[in-house]
Amino acid sequence: MPDLAYVNGTILPIEKALVPIEDRGYQFGDAVYEFIASYDGRLFMLEPHLDRLERSMGELGYDPISRSDIRTATLDLLKRSGYPRAGIYVQISRGVAPRNHAILPGLSHQVIMTIRPVQEIGADKRRNGARVITVPDIRWGRCDIKTVQLLANSLAKQKAIDSGCDDAIFVSDQGIAREGTSSNLFVVQRGRLTTHPVTSRILAGITRTVVIDLARSDGLDVQESVFGLETLYGSDEAFLTGTVTEVLPVVAIDGRPVGDGSVGPISRRLYARLREMASVQ
Amino acid sequence: MPDLAYVNGTILPIEKALVPIEDRGYQFGDAVYEFIASYDGRLFMLEPHLDRLERSMGELGYDPISRSDIRTATLDLLKRSGYPRAGIYVQISRGVAPRNHAILPGLSHQVIMTIRPVQEIGADKRRNGARVITVPDIRWGRCDIKTVQLLANSLAKQKAIDSGCDDAIFVSDQGIAREGTSSNLFVVQRGRLTTHPVTSRILAGITRTVVIDLARSDGLDVQESVFGLETLYGSDEAFLTGTVTEVLPVVAIDGRPVGDGSVGPISRRLYARLREMASVQ
Repeated sequence: MPDLAYVNGTILPIEKALVPIEDRGYQFGDAVYEFIASYDGRLFMLEPHLDRLERSMGELGYDPISRSDIRTATLDLLKRSGYPRAGIYVQISRGVAPRNHAILPGLSHQVIMTIRPVQEIGADKRRNGARVITVPDIRWGRCDIKTVQLLANSLAKQKAIDSGCDDAIFVSDQGIAREGTSSNLFVVQRGRLTTHPVTSRILAGITRTVVIDLARSDGLDVQESVFGLETLYGSDEAFLTGTVTEVLPVVAIDGRPVGDGSVGPISRRLYARLREMASVQ
Repeated sequence: MPDLAYVNGTILPIEKALVPIEDRGYQFGDAVYEFIASYDGRLFMLEPHLDRLERSMGELGYDPISRSDIRTATLDLLKRSGYPRAGIYVQISRGVAPRNHAILPGLSHQVIMTIRPVQEIGADKRRNGARVITVPDIRWGRCDIKTVQLLANSLAKQKAIDSGCDDAIFVSDQGIAREGTSSNLFVVQRGRLTTHPVTSRILAGITRTVVIDLARSDGLDVQESVFGLETLYGSDEAFLTGTVTEVLPVVAIDGRPVGDGSVGPISRRLYARLREMASVQ
């Protein structure tokens, strides 16, 4: 049951998977990606991930790609790996060309994938919640496209770790709380959930949508609107959502406790609902 | 006299030069670069390029690398190529690791290079000047670090080409003109030059500094301060500077003529001075 890579149709060990140095993904960050997880050997939300992959490619003017080829390749990798709880990373770059900012016509996509067991968030963190810092949002203006323009995200994540925390929340110049480094952010105030609306400044997370639907089906009010740092600091609960993050309660922000500093009931319930949904898909 | 690549010490044809798919340059845009040109078989401004490469690495917290190894490799490539007018692209990524936003300690840099003849700007364009458009500056907030976070630059360049123009100028939300997609921007008003100051919003171009020095040695006043779109539209002359761009006059911006719409005397003289300097280095 090995970790595997896929490169343009060929399956091989990850450490043997290579791409040309003039892949535009490598020299311009001109590539899009998805990360898809399985539960009990079944990929969760595969079609929404494929939808978003197609949208990302479209926004960047990539030629379309065969959706069924990508779907088949992910399912094949999953089967070969034998992993019940797998994480499949899919990256598609515009292609390979002598380095030039201008985009030559006729490039062929490079499609790479990897499969590994999901690196689960520890049980302790799930039980006791995560601690986050806030950082200025210096990312580019098209965070709605899931590209590999991720250096700001990576640096922010590492800054959080260096600060003894788990993740970082991007905050705009105007003090608006955007999202985590690889997750969306929700706050809970008097039973009402709020999360950043879908704009060019955040990624429209698939788990974000699932959680909104789960919350509404629980009778909770969910509002998609911007909120500031003071709202974040003063919320009763806060949590992050994402494919690996699932629903992760945030119990401290910039060293201040969220609510009473323990995991709140709404965060806890939404996590349980999400796991339940994933297990019965 | 072939085009050549260098990958971590090995020299090989560019099309055979490969990197692992889990190079962080490929999956996070976590890589820095330089582009160095030769004139008559001698690399121009090699040491300032190496200075900037070291600074970029330092700003991202990369471990230092042997400067003399990089210098030796570039000179060796130049010699092997036999090209009198070569362009050497040097890219250093943080290293290869299983995909994770967090930065694992102990990674080894990946160093890749390519050498090709410089793709010269056409004589006609040099004589008659370039046409540019302006685009919103949606790049990330650390444009002072020469990273491969270049998708916004590439998309802007392509938009310019699709508009029948040569390049695009990034303009901030507040209307401040920043720079081109791979060049710095100068305007001339009544004999005085102005260019954007060195901040996190532009790259501190090496040709930019050379041109400032050449202009001052010619007795011209050069100011490093921000200016808006109206100033840009109303300037007597405008030009772009860069390693391949050298000094390229801009004769139209968003379809409006700059000055009388022809190449101005200061732009022309600074181009000649730069070429003279490069030829006698």
